[in-house]
Parts: sequence; structure tokens; C-alpha cells
Amino acid sequence: MSATVEFFFDVGSPASYLAWTQLPRLAAETKATVAWRPMLLGGVFKATGNTSPVNVPAKGRWMTDDLHRWARRYGVPFSLNPSFPINTLTLMRGAAGMQMRHADRFLGYVDAIYRAMFESPRNLGDADALVATLREAGFDPGEFAALVADPEVKARLIATTEEAVGRGVFGAPTFFVGEQMFFGQDRLEFVREALLAAT
Amino acid sequence: MSATVEFFFDVGSPASYLAWTQLPRLAAETKATVAWRPMLLGGVFKATGNTSPVNVPAKGRWMTDDLHRWARRYGVPFSLNPSFPINTLTLMRGAAGMQMRHADRFLGYVDAIYRAMFESPRNLGDADALVATLREAGFDPGEFAALVADPEVKARLIATTEEAVGRGVFGAPTFFVGEQMFFGQDRLEFVREALLAAT
Repeated sequence: MSATVEFFFDVGSPASYLAWTQLPRLAAETKATVAWRPMLLGGVFKATGNTSPVNVPAKGRWMTDDLHRWARRYGVPFSLNPSFPINTLTLMRGAAGMQMRHADRFLGYVDAIYRAMFESPRNLGDADALVATLREAGFDPGEFAALVADPEVKARLIATTEEAVGRGVFGAPTFFVGEQMFFGQDRLEFVREALLAAT
Repeated sequence: MSATVEFFFDVGSPASYLAWTQLPRLAAETKATVAWRPMLLGGVFKATGNTSPVNVPAKGRWMTDDLHRWARRYGVPFSLNPSFPINTLTLMRGAAGMQMRHADRFLGYVDAIYRAMFESPRNLGDADALVATLREAGFDPGEFAALVADPEVKARLIATTEEAVGRGVFGAPTFFVGEQMFFGQDRLEFVREALLAAT
């Protein structure tokens, strides 16, 4: 039996990016399936009263060091995006839309966006930078614009975000293994244990 | 050469309690010295704009599960105190005072308080419960009352709290190895690495 880990994430969250880099290996090692759950972190914050850690300046400064430490431990590139935090509504509609309409391109899309967020940072809140990023990854900007304007896509992102909040999510990344919830990329070892116990 | 880890903590913080249970072994394994730095977490919050995670209800619920998971991993008892959070001003003045005036009894005091906070929980905001806890641990409540009213003791707690804030502390527990700061009992592995690298 293969266990499933649900991964609720937003492309604006650097900790979600770090988790994203680790999930393929974790899934392979535990023979688990990843259920990708793109949600809007801003919507989660609004619904729960939570805020970004960077709103407390001292916490934001420490978080930067901490994220770099984890990236070194994982052996993955990481640059804090100078445009951070950005409004990720369009980007996350894109993720929800790819998953609905072009499932085979979903992972490639998220990967391209994460690289432009935290590996070679661009300001993806800027339309030109987004268009360039999409083109380089082989996506048609016109088709993308239509996708993120699709009411069903918008509704899907809202529904996933509301589902997350209803299940207790207050930040990103959040993982579920069955009913067990784990918050933070720094809880991947607990996720691993839960997946191994579930198989 | 022996490295030193500074441990900034408040007895009201359940994550600080978990770190407290792990530090003796960590120090032994890394041949490090622990510099105990009692501070007032409420003062840190006020100075930095940070707040207790329990102020976001969904985060507070998850944190309870998370603390129990860590306690199981560490193999230590843990009960969330039903009186949590409490005002720890008197308790932390006690810690600062023991360290100043009765250094040989400092660890025994903190241990007794942590056990009454998170092992067999009592409401230590209640004067009778505090007196009973002190008596059972062999402390004279009258001497304790004089200690926590001592202006030099009060000043020491303020000074340590201000020093912490000045060095970037925004929560508890926080560890320093030299200039490197680590926040959270879930960063003890990074503390261990820093101590090993420093020797």
C-alpha cells in the first residue's frame, strides 16, 4: 500500500520552496505519493489571523539565516528574493489552473516559478518578469493569461484554500498524512515517520 | 577548548522546557558549557512586536500536537499546562535571583518550576501553588519572596532581557554559539553542529 502526503504550498513561501526541493526524494524513499495542493497563503493568513514572520523584523532577520542553513543542509540553491513578499494570487491561480487543465505541465510550471522566486530571483509581481519566466520555461503568456482569468480556476484556488483553513492550516508549507498535520519544512522528518508508519 | 552555548529561556515557554530537558546531554556530547540566561519572554515580545503562537488559534492547536510529538521523540514527560500562558515575572525573577545569590541552587529551582509547569502542571500564577512547589523542592517561601523583591535581582532580569533583544532575540528558547543565533528547541541539531565546529 502506498501512503499519500498532501502538500499545501504557496510559491511565495521560501520554506515551501525548500520542502518542494526535498519532497521527490522523500516520496521515493517512503514509496509515497505526493498530492500537490496549491493554496493562497494570503487567504490562509486572512482567515486565521496569522501573519508572515517578516512582520516581526527580528524574526525576519533570523528566518533569513535559518533558511540559508537549511538550504546548505539540503544542498540546494537558495537566494532570498529581494522582492519578497510578493502578492502570489496570479502565480497560484496559474498553479491551480495547470493542475486542472494541463496536469502534465503542473510540476514544470511550479518548478519554473520556484526557480525564479528563490534560485535566480526575479520580481514575479512584475508583469514583464513573469512573461519572461513563462516564455523561458516554454509556456505561452497569452494562454497563461486566459488560464488565470478562468472562473473555474479561480474557484479551485479558493476552494483549496478554504479546505486548508477548515482542516487547521495556518501557514505554508503544511503536510497531511491522513489526519495528521505537520507545519513547516523543518517537520519533514516527522512526515517521513508518518508515511513509513502508514504503509 | 570547550565551546559555550548560551540558553535564553523563560519557564513559561513549553519549547524552552523541551530544550531544557535536552541540553545536559547535548552539552555532554559536545563537551560544551551551558550559559543559562533567564530572560522575561513577555518583555521580549513587547520589545520586538512578536506574540505568543497561541494568539493564532489554529497555530496554538497545531503547536500542542507538535510539542507532544517532540516530547515523545525525546522520551520526556510533557503536559500542556491548563493555566498556560501565565505571567512569569515572579518566576523569572526567581531564576535570575537564584543565579545571582544562590548559584548552587539555580538548576534545582528551574527544574522544580519546569516540572510544575509541564510535567505535573500546576497554576504557578497562583500564590498557594507556587508556595507549595517551592516547599516541596526545599525552598523557603519567605526567602524566595525577599529574593524576587530585591531591586538588584529585578534589574538583572531586565538587563538580560534587554541584552537578548539587542542581540536579535524575539522568542524562546534562543541559543547563541558565539555570534550565531538559533531560535527554537527544534534547532538543537544546528546548535550541536555549531558547538562541534567551535571546539
